[in-house]
Amino acid sequence: MTAGLVARTRAFIRDVVIPAEPAWGETLAAEALAGLRAAAREAGVYAPHAPAAYGGLGLALPDWSPVFQEAGYSPIGPAVLNCMAPDEGNMRLLELVATDEQKERYLRPLVAGEIRSSFAMTEPHPGAGSDPAALATTARRVDGGWVIDGEKRFISGAEGAMFAIVMARTDAGDGHPAGATMLLTPLDADGVRIGPSIRTIEAAIAGGHPHVRFAGVFVPDADVLGAPGEGFRYAQVRLGPARLTHCMRWLGLARRAFDISLDRANARELFGARLADLGVAQALIADSAIDLATADAVIDAAARALEDDPRRGADLSAIAKVHCSEAVYRVIDRAVQLCGGDGVSSGLPLIQYLNEVRPFRIYDGSSETHRWAIARRAAKDRAREVAAGEPRRDVVDGGAR
Amino acid sequence: MTAGLVARTRAFIRDVVIPAEPAWGETLAAEALAGLRAAAREAGVYAPHAPAAYGGLGLALPDWSPVFQEAGYSPIGPAVLNCMAPDEGNMRLLELVATDEQKERYLRPLVAGEIRSSFAMTEPHPGAGSDPAALATTARRVDGGWVIDGEKRFISGAEGAMFAIVMARTDAGDGHPAGATMLLTPLDADGVRIGPSIRTIEAAIAGGHPHVRFAGVFVPDADVLGAPGEGFRYAQVRLGPARLTHCMRWLGLARRAFDISLDRANARELFGARLADLGVAQALIADSAIDLATADAVIDAAARALEDDPRRGADLSAIAKVHCSEAVYRVIDRAVQLCGGDGVSSGLPLIQYLNEVRPFRIYDGSSETHRWAIARRAAKDRAREVAAGEPRRDVVDGGAR
Amino acid sequence: MTAGLVARTRAFIRDVVIPAEPAWGETLAAEALAGLRAAAREAGVYAPHAPAAYGGLGLALPDWSPVFQEAGYSPIGPAVLNCMAPDEGNMRLLELVATDEQKERYLRPLVAGEIRSSFAMTEPHPGAGSDPAALATTARRVDGGWVIDGEKRFISGAEGAMFAIVMARTDAGDGHPAGATMLLTPLDADGVRIGPSIRTIEAAIAGGHPHVRFAGVFVPDADVLGAPGEGFRYAQVRLGPARLTHCMRWLGLARRAFDISLDRANARELFGARLADLGVAQALIADSAIDLATADAVIDAAARALEDDPRRGADLSAIAKVHCSEAVYRVIDRAVQLCGGDGVSSGLPLIQYLNEVRPFRIYDGSSETHRWAIARRAAKDRAREVAAGEPRRDVVDGGAR
Amino acid sequence: MTAGLVARTRAFIRDVVIPAEPAWGETLAAEALAGLRAAAREAGVYAPHAPAAYGGLGLALPDWSPVFQEAGYSPIGPAVLNCMAPDEGNMRLLELVATDEQKERYLRPLVAGEIRSSFAMTEPHPGAGSDPAALATTARRVDGGWVIDGEKRFISGAEGAMFAIVMARTDAGDGHPAGATMLLTPLDADGVRIGPSIRTIEAAIAGGHPHVRFAGVFVPDADVLGAPGEGFRYAQVRLGPARLTHCMRWLGLARRAFDISLDRANARELFGARLADLGVAQALIADSAIDLATADAVIDAAARALEDDPRRGADLSAIAKVHCSEAVYRVIDRAVQLCGGDGVSSGLPLIQYLNEVRPFRIYDGSSETHRWAIARRAAKDRAREVAAGEPRRDVVDGGAR
Repeated sequence: MTAGLVARTRAFIRDVVIPAEPAWGETLAAEALAGLRAAAREAGVYAPHAPAAYGGLGLALPDWSPVFQEAGYSPIGPAVLNCMAPDEGNMRLLELVATDEQKERYLRPLVAGEIRSSFAMTEPHPGAGSDPAALATTARRVDGGWVIDGEKRFISGAEGAMFAIVMARTDAGDGHPAGATMLLTPLDADGVRIGPSIRTIEAAIAGGHPHVRFAGVFVPDADVLGAPGEGFRYAQVRLGPARLTHCMRWLGLARRAFDISLDRANARELFGARLADLGVAQALIADSAIDLATADAVIDAAARALEDDPRRGADLSAIAKVHCSEAVYRVIDRAVQLCGGDGVSSGLPLIQYLNEVRPFRIYDGSSETHRWAIARRAAKDRAREVAAGEPRRDVVDGGAR
Repeated sequence: MTAGLVARTRAFIRDVVIPAEPAWGETLAAEALAGLRAAAREAGVYAPHAPAAYGGLGLALPDWSPVFQEAGYSPIGPAVLNCMAPDEGNMRLLELVATDEQKERYLRPLVAGEIRSSFAMTEPHPGAGSDPAALATTARRVDGGWVIDGEKRFISGAEGAMFAIVMARTDAGDGHPAGATMLLTPLDADGVRIGPSIRTIEAAIAGGHPHVRFAGVFVPDADVLGAPGEGFRYAQVRLGPARLTHCMRWLGLARRAFDISLDRANARELFGARLADLGVAQALIADSAIDLATADAVIDAAARALEDDPRRGADLSAIAKVHCSEAVYRVIDRAVQLCGGDGVSSGLPLIQYLNEVRPFRIYDGSSETHRWAIARRAAKDRAREVAAGEPRRDVVDGGAR
Repeated sequence: MTAGLVARTRAFIRDVVIPAEPAWGETLAAEALAGLRAAAREAGVYAPHAPAAYGGLGLALPDWSPVFQEAGYSPIGPAVLNCMAPDEGNMRLLELVATDEQKERYLRPLVAGEIRSSFAMTEPHPGAGSDPAALATTARRVDGGWVIDGEKRFISGAEGAMFAIVMARTDAGDGHPAGATMLLTPLDADGVRIGPSIRTIEAAIAGGHPHVRFAGVFVPDADVLGAPGEGFRYAQVRLGPARLTHCMRWLGLARRAFDISLDRANARELFGARLADLGVAQALIADSAIDLATADAVIDAAARALEDDPRRGADLSAIAKVHCSEAVYRVIDRAVQLCGGDGVSSGLPLIQYLNEVRPFRIYDGSSETHRWAIARRAAKDRAREVAAGEPRRDVVDGGAR
Repeated sequence: MTAGLVARTRAFIRDVVIPAEPAWGETLAAEALAGLRAAAREAGVYAPHAPAAYGGLGLALPDWSPVFQEAGYSPIGPAVLNCMAPDEGNMRLLELVATDEQKERYLRPLVAGEIRSSFAMTEPHPGAGSDPAALATTARRVDGGWVIDGEKRFISGAEGAMFAIVMARTDAGDGHPAGATMLLTPLDADGVRIGPSIRTIEAAIAGGHPHVRFAGVFVPDADVLGAPGEGFRYAQVRLGPARLTHCMRWLGLARRAFDISLDRANARELFGARLADLGVAQALIADSAIDLATADAVIDAAARALEDDPRRGADLSAIAKVHCSEAVYRVIDRAVQLCGGDGVSSGLPLIQYLNEVRPFRIYDGSSETHRWAIARRAAKDRAREVAAGEPRRDVVDGGAR
């Protein structure tokens, strides 16, 4: 089934979506998006990742990558197929954690594209930024529900979203530990204030990245997502795949940039040779081919691991995130170089693509934060092996010192 | 004298220019620029590179770097000091090649900031792009002058410029060889058509980067710059230093980005430590410090060589161009990483700076074109040494094979 | 089954093989090797890749990687398990192409470890080096067989090998095209002369890397491997997996180096902190973890592709070769840095490991040769898509130019 | 004068020294070295850096680089010219700090090549390794002198050296502070025990890198070098230039490797083209040319700064050390790639050169230790500027957040 869906998605993106892409500096109008989504449904490519019972195609996570890459070949492809962040990650979280009743109210219209959603975790300094443990927003137990107070920032998609999944710190209560709790919070609730959007360099995510303030916002018990106090665990459930789907989508855009640059290199004559035959161009092309193939392979490995062995899946998805976000950036950057002046101007969309993917090296954990965590995990895992009886290799393998 | 000028420029940029910087997406108004230039004259920092006889400070090329770096600390600094491309390179070329009469008409008002200028060499494919030998624009000898026909592209600063120095292919004539000739061409001359500007990602150069078409444009003999047929030689005279001054200015902007990121790293707490004390941040900071120092050193080496040994100066300025354009990009890119979400949004100017310097890896010869030329030169220089008697080391140093 | 074999191999290498590793500068004695192989057979880990009918464990190619990585954790592990180059690649080629009678004579004793073998393709300049098409060694048709004339170089393992698979250029004949032919050639045949071994920096391959000269060497028809004229095709059959198994084995050694460096980093105090907690060390550790994971993933992807889609498998195995050979080198190089003085001395085996893997960036196609081929293939594949109707993206995606 | 000395040194190295280089694995015999030194004296190129009054040529530090680079073009060149570590750094320290009487006894015979010397600072873990503050060796005040107790490791050149400059921790005493003190210690003194040499991967430094133990070794007051308690300051005086001279010498060897690879690339045909014309080779060549030029430039900048502004000189020499040690390694590594199989075998000396320079990324402060220090210094310097009134740029330059 996947191969067919990949082919259909590929054809749909190239035949229907790319011709509808907005010009530089413009965004896709709501009606145009609705029309494209209708066409996607008709073509049998809509919401590939969402559960079939709620309007999607029910694809299993290890099969998402080739489909999402085809979708990402157009910057608006994921929005058209309704598999863009943050909605896509919220759909998965709802699928895995929400009650049936919550699924009807939140998941079904989300898959249908009738509403948009948001994920409200990040906070202004010194709250939960790179360090989730610093969570400052609270939800206080009250009769029949919870009252949220706090401030969030970089809340992607919040403008125009129907609801947000809000992470808040909660005390221990009857049967649940102290920790973080996720609350399904309509953004038109009393006490919610959406600030002015921050202007960022990318444009692909509808609804901006505004600050959102919660002042005494009441959320009834029925809108608690999963068990109270388990929010950090759910955040991991969401984040692993959400990181990977970013990798998949942007890898698709990197393939687009690579194709643009190959077409240029195949056509352009320079110093009496085809650009594609000039060695310094070949070095760029080869490095990009290697980046694309290794990114693809590590996404696959991480997606399989997320299903088979969640701990290893979390490790690998972090590694995949760092590698892919940097590989994707390099591929587009090299395409810019190969296309010269057109690469940095409106002559080609490449510099826009470069700006689209630049923030991915920062959001969902910056490359540096992940590297720090990856190193600590590697050192700890090894220390555990040694504690369990493995000999210290630097001692055993040591010679006469 | 240089140390005093550096200090004055530093103070002027920080006290006067930075507060006048336009907001994201806006450009400096003409009157504001005029006011700032008047202030610069008053402060004794205006046109440091231009000859004293024509209104500048007459600094020698090997001393430009620290002053230009201070100017470049603000994206509008070089424009305020009137040492921005393409005018700055044109001033130097006029100083070295123009007649006294031409200097009065073109150089004096250019230094004064009364007019702007342009340098028209690059052509649409398959003309003179990376490969100047493909020059397609012609200047035909006619009575009392020359008639230019051809099309140029990416003519930075052409909108609103009073004149352009046009490179055109010319036949051999009385006493001069076939080759390229430079012609001082007023852009309001009959037959000049300035096309719509190309939208590029950077904004620092006034006057855009439009196409310019020349259809039967007459230029009198008095406006030929230097000797006919010597255009390629003059282009080298201009390009070596012009490449270097780009390096100097953008290195200044990289220092600004570095300071922004250091201030953030010194102030921000993360995971219970100062960001500046976290190792993955330290690795970024150290690599940028190394990039800044090596860029500075190679600019100095190239500037000294350009005065002492033009051939070596040309080689070194090409190497400096590649190293600095890439180092400057990396430094700003790392500053973006260190500043997280603010780095890719209007929260800080870093992502704008990154876009400002991105084209520098392409214009004035892309990194790849230069690498190709550098490699060929290295191989040829060595072949010449071997031809002159040096033993082939791969043979002499070879062991039992 | 694979998981069990991986665990057994892991235990065997650590418990039995590592304690038997020779000291720096020494090599494993033949009797010691024989004893270790007997132990490997007993432990059920011997010749994992070889067909069960001929004495191996019959593992399928996509399952080799984790086992070979465990074997490669010791520099002598692959020799002990008899899955080292060049024998391992020759076994596979014999399995796929040889006649039953040839398998009895060559494959069975090879798997048993009774003989060693060699693969004689590379020639002195200007013959078949990086460019196999330049094959200069010939095999001339004679009555009942062929006569080989030519010279080969870097014939790994030739000293002491019982036979070599010799690639020779052959004319078209009855029913077979002109091309290359593979001949099973006993190295004690008349006319074979094995030259002095070239001293290389690595030591893992038994039998050195000598020149081998063939002067009128007769090979009977029964020892032609596969069909005459098909040698280049068989070479591809051998090379794809052979490249990958090098990646697998050396990746295992890189894991050893990584463990050594982690044990040191976990134990060593520096500037008042554990080395593993110092950021610049963390950056090295994280980059190595990323290299190990992406290398592992791309090996897996290539191994699966080699079974499912040979053309894609060939592409991916070339990419895997470049990525892994460089990643493995970087990982060991970083381990050297983490261990300071011990890293470059006999205090630890790391600098030996570094020298062991250095040639892998050159043999089986250097990184540069592969990059060149990868770039050409990428450009050609894309040109083929465009020829088949895909729009030229640099034209279609182009804006107003 | 320098230009002439550079040319003479160049000629001497090529005509006299290179033909005398020992084969792989062998070292220069003492008599051969003595003969070459006599020839060097005759040629007027001996001991260029040493003070003229003590037998050298008295070159000023900013002029050393081109001469040392010529010397380093042969791995034995610096030993022949007697400007190799550790003697060269000791000569400079003696010149700057020693008494006249000490100069006669230690400096004069050292310059003459009659004796060798050593510098004993590094200690076994957890003593003074990367972190000099951990100095564990002590010198106790006794009547008429000091008594040293402690252990040193990696004491380059100690075997056969006449004396070592020993760093030892000392208490405060009459007029001098607590700190480190340098003591000129004959290595045949009672209580000195030189351990077995550690086998390292490089071979250029005569006298190995053994452990040296000091058990109650008496040193009279006359052999204290400089003032007691000032050892760390003198260590800095020694280390800045000593790091730089390593850069200079190894940069010379990198040029040799570059020449070997260029000669090969100019001569070798591959795939129907000269290797030097193949693009992936050109990319390697260009990157090496850039590395050589930037390394040269930053050495010059650091050498000038060491004379003009010691603090800036110390900063720049650390940056130069990191950049040059890594650039030199990359240049030789690329030369290995360009020469294929010969690059990793005794066919060419390149892999030996690679092993010679590998430890330089570790000794005199590893790249990681220096990066850590460079980052801390950059952050502190900037914090000091801000404390002195510079506005915090991340605040002032911040937009609407």
